[in-house]
Amino acid sequence: MPETLDHKIRASFARQSLMDTFGARIDSIGSGIVTLSAPILPLALQQHGYAHAGLTFSLADSAAGYAALTLMPPEAEVLTAEIKINLLAPASGDRLEAVGRVIKPGRRLVIVQSDVYAITGSSRRHVAIAQGTMVPVTPS
Amino acid sequence: MPETLDHKIRASFARQSLMDTFGARIDSIGSGIVTLSAPILPLALQQHGYAHAGLTFSLADSAAGYAALTLMPPEAEVLTAEIKINLLAPASGDRLEAVGRVIKPGRRLVIVQSDVYAITGSSRRHVAIAQGTMVPVTPS
Amino acid sequence: MPETLDHKIRASFARQSLMDTFGARIDSIGSGIVTLSAPILPLALQQHGYAHAGLTFSLADSAAGYAALTLMPPEAEVLTAEIKINLLAPASGDRLEAVGRVIKPGRRLVIVQSDVYAITGSSRRHVAIAQGTMVPVTPS
Amino acid sequence: MPETLDHKIRASFARQSLMDTFGARIDSIGSGIVTLSAPILPLALQQHGYAHAGLTFSLADSAAGYAALTLMPPEAEVLTAEIKINLLAPASGDRLEAVGRVIKPGRRLVIVQSDVYAITGSSRRHVAIAQGTMVPVTPS
Repeated sequence: MPETLDHKIRASFARQSLMDTFGARIDSIGSGIVTLSAPILPLALQQHGYAHAGLTFSLADSAAGYAALTLMPPEAEVLTAEIKINLLAPASGDRLEAVGRVIKPGRRLVIVQSDVYAITGSSRRHVAIAQGTMVPVTPS
Repeated sequence: MPETLDHKIRASFARQSLMDTFGARIDSIGSGIVTLSAPILPLALQQHGYAHAGLTFSLADSAAGYAALTLMPPEAEVLTAEIKINLLAPASGDRLEAVGRVIKPGRRLVIVQSDVYAITGSSRRHVAIAQGTMVPVTPS
Repeated sequence: MPETLDHKIRASFARQSLMDTFGARIDSIGSGIVTLSAPILPLALQQHGYAHAGLTFSLADSAAGYAALTLMPPEAEVLTAEIKINLLAPASGDRLEAVGRVIKPGRRLVIVQSDVYAITGSSRRHVAIAQGTMVPVTPS
Repeated sequence: MPETLDHKIRASFARQSLMDTFGARIDSIGSGIVTLSAPILPLALQQHGYAHAGLTFSLADSAAGYAALTLMPPEAEVLTAEIKINLLAPASGDRLEAVGRVIKPGRRLVIVQSDVYAITGSSRRHVAIAQGTMVPVTPS
């Protein structure tokens, strides 16, 4: 990654208060691929004590959005147009890790996928897959 | 609503720590339809200062899940199998309101839709639609 | 509908050979809403003798696309960016009817929903719901 | 593949009249992965002369469904509960090839993905991705 792109993504991530609320961090940034992770905090659970689908979705969405951002012009930003998520298993463990990837970049639409894993010690369980569309926006 | 069903839903909602983190509340419970709402708190924003898609999704998901729960046997609970959300407009304002509805109940799958609105004073803007599948689970 | 828009949609529909293969017709065109229908022909079945999901999807997609087209400038055409469909019940009967509606028009993205019904005599069964995104394209 | 499973899938495929209409064939069957392909026939086009999204969807759906079937008990069949498809590029060329894969098998739900490619001579273009849910059904 060019240093300016890395900086742009980290600065944008730092402005997402929801990521801070969830204790999320950026684990890695590559060209068209970004990995985020977060602990499963007591503040983000559903009624059975597992991670809420909203936490899983938020990480999948943000990882995919930043993956899209790595392939855009420096001045562009990105908005989520739509995402679909399938939950594969209840999400419990130490952390959730979301890997977002660009499947098809484009000037108007960027098609993305994410995989989310629940990590407990050295085990890594696939808990969600997501597929969606990001839209580049240029501040006017 | 029978009082026991109303109680079951409110007790389940109270156990969802993420709903508490977001300051969400149940506005109404009907047969196959549930309305939730939450303020757009400073802790749930994305990088441009709008409500994070994760907040919008969480409310859409929970409203749809509880709508499904209203049509299930007393001992059943519900899990989200999958949801797809389209974001129609940036979500800003005083509150987000999510209306979840059952489109097709079933013993194995319950098909649901949600609409999410951003409310500012007396104006109400449609900011997201969601469509998904809930799965009844019976504690063994 | 202005006569020219009605004509544009019917001419476009006539160029879709798949619609002709399925015996589909336009039932009505309104502002932001289009209804199509087709018989369930022996050539469009799945392995259990019901309408193939591909037929249901094709009608849902085309109805939604033409609904989007009713709200676009005269020179624009429309492409499907993505659609998600939930099948509610096996589709059998005399005909399938798809009602496509625009939920949110836009210059770059048009958000749409469709409902598909199986019609047998005077009964009408809800067999699918779809939600997606259409993209306006202008011939260059 | 056990010969009986291979036979079961080919017999089911042969009963799908829509696959025959499209001239589709099974290219390969593996454990949790099935590849189908079809020519882009003049009878399956949209208004601009590209393959109709309904053809792309039908192949993606059937490939994913048969991939699910490879992991089910001999007596089970499979129904599509829901699928979401993103179209990456206009589909033109000699053939469309759909590769369906099981991401997560299950007794009640099987989560699947498909990739669709347009093939022209020796070039292979990624034209669609799909993600969905198949449901095992046992004849009663």
